[in-house]
Amino acid sequence: MSQPRRGYRAGVDPVLLAASVGARAGESLLDLGCGAGTAALCAGRRVPGLVLAGLERQAPYAALARRNAADNGLEMTVHEGDLAQMPEALRQCVFDHVIANPPYFRRTASSPAQAEDREAAMGEETPLDTWVEMAARRCKPKGHVTFIHRAERLPELLAAFEARLGSIELMPLVPRPGRESQLVLLRGRKGGRAAFRLHAGLLLHRSATHEGDREDYTEAAQHILRDGAALVFDR
Amino acid sequence: MSQPRRGYRAGVDPVLLAASVGARAGESLLDLGCGAGTAALCAGRRVPGLVLAGLERQAPYAALARRNAADNGLEMTVHEGDLAQMPEALRQCVFDHVIANPPYFRRTASSPAQAEDREAAMGEETPLDTWVEMAARRCKPKGHVTFIHRAERLPELLAAFEARLGSIELMPLVPRPGRESQLVLLRGRKGGRAAFRLHAGLLLHRSATHEGDREDYTEAAQHILRDGAALVFDR
Repeated sequence: MSQPRRGYRAGVDPVLLAASVGARAGESLLDLGCGAGTAALCAGRRVPGLVLAGLERQAPYAALARRNAADNGLEMTVHEGDLAQMPEALRQCVFDHVIANPPYFRRTASSPAQAEDREAAMGEETPLDTWVEMAARRCKPKGHVTFIHRAERLPELLAAFEARLGSIELMPLVPRPGRESQLVLLRGRKGGRAAFRLHAGLLLHRSATHEGDREDYTEAAQHILRDGAALVFDR
Repeated sequence: MSQPRRGYRAGVDPVLLAASVGARAGESLLDLGCGAGTAALCAGRRVPGLVLAGLERQAPYAALARRNAADNGLEMTVHEGDLAQMPEALRQCVFDHVIANPPYFRRTASSPAQAEDREAAMGEETPLDTWVEMAARRCKPKGHVTFIHRAERLPELLAAFEARLGSIELMPLVPRPGRESQLVLLRGRKGGRAAFRLHAGLLLHRSATHEGDREDYTEAAQHILRDGAALVFDR
């Protein structure tokens, strides 16, 4: 998978996001703000026959996503354009699954990134609520919307989901035993009517503290990050 | 501790709620809808010198709370009255800590309880948002409001906290390894400005499945439920 040498580079987040999508062959998936295509392509690898699409504002990332798709032998339609001004071609489409890994840092709360493209990928020019609104619009009735985001933005993200989706489920990603979550997965269903559910959380690392460079992912995290296993909410 | 033979009886919920209050001697605590006084009295036991007050709508429960306080050698001012029509004496007071264990079942979603007092304790005549509003009003600046409630009501509870409190922290109560939460503790600070935090959760039982009548609380849960230890969010 190619990534830009400078600027935003994908971490484990898009891999966890992709693993959490309960998609089946023949269904369709849209990755909003797809960047280099990591999340969509991971999902496409895991679920053969999944129809992939992405929306990316920055042309260099969109080009990378297309190249990564080709390199991985996957078809992915990458639309260039802004979330808030959805390209006409995308407005005609709805998907079984819409996923997003929105930029993490509030412009007001973090120092501006040095490179402009990094700022565009990491900053928040589009409000989180707009991300959820656009995701819900592109989602089929009974389809699913899944976001990965910083835990500290959960109140805002949950309110945005509540306003437009139902059957909402929260999966905390617990970095180490007893440590607070830095990241959460939030899933909603368009037209869903089930009660909110708070899952037990996926523990990522075994040790209570970081031990040098030694990798100590839990078995469950290893299966997801290395072997491409699904991240199932209901265990 | 005396409890009514019929009607609402306290489970572990008020004990967990009481354990989560980070109170110190000389501070004050108000338990909204205090019932038989379990939560306030547990907190008073753990923190000697904590000044205790409660508000209870039903006279028999208020009487029970007073008797339980006396039986435990603790002073507790139990006000009788409705949350939405706060007694005048309470309107004059603010507290370092306000706690609540609001009724759990939506009237619309559950069959009406048989006994009328059980209905009053378990049903929801007062909207959850009003509970939080009243708790925030009775809280001192920089004081803390803590609720225990069903996990499925988290979106609504969190929105109510967000509207009136800051520095919000969520502590999921995980019933068994890998099982979704049925209960959550939510804490906010009046005038707090810290980011939202999602803690790793307190695991209550050791085994993945219920094994007959054998008690299998985790060590942490035992310390809290039996030995009266504090439930600390930051571990």
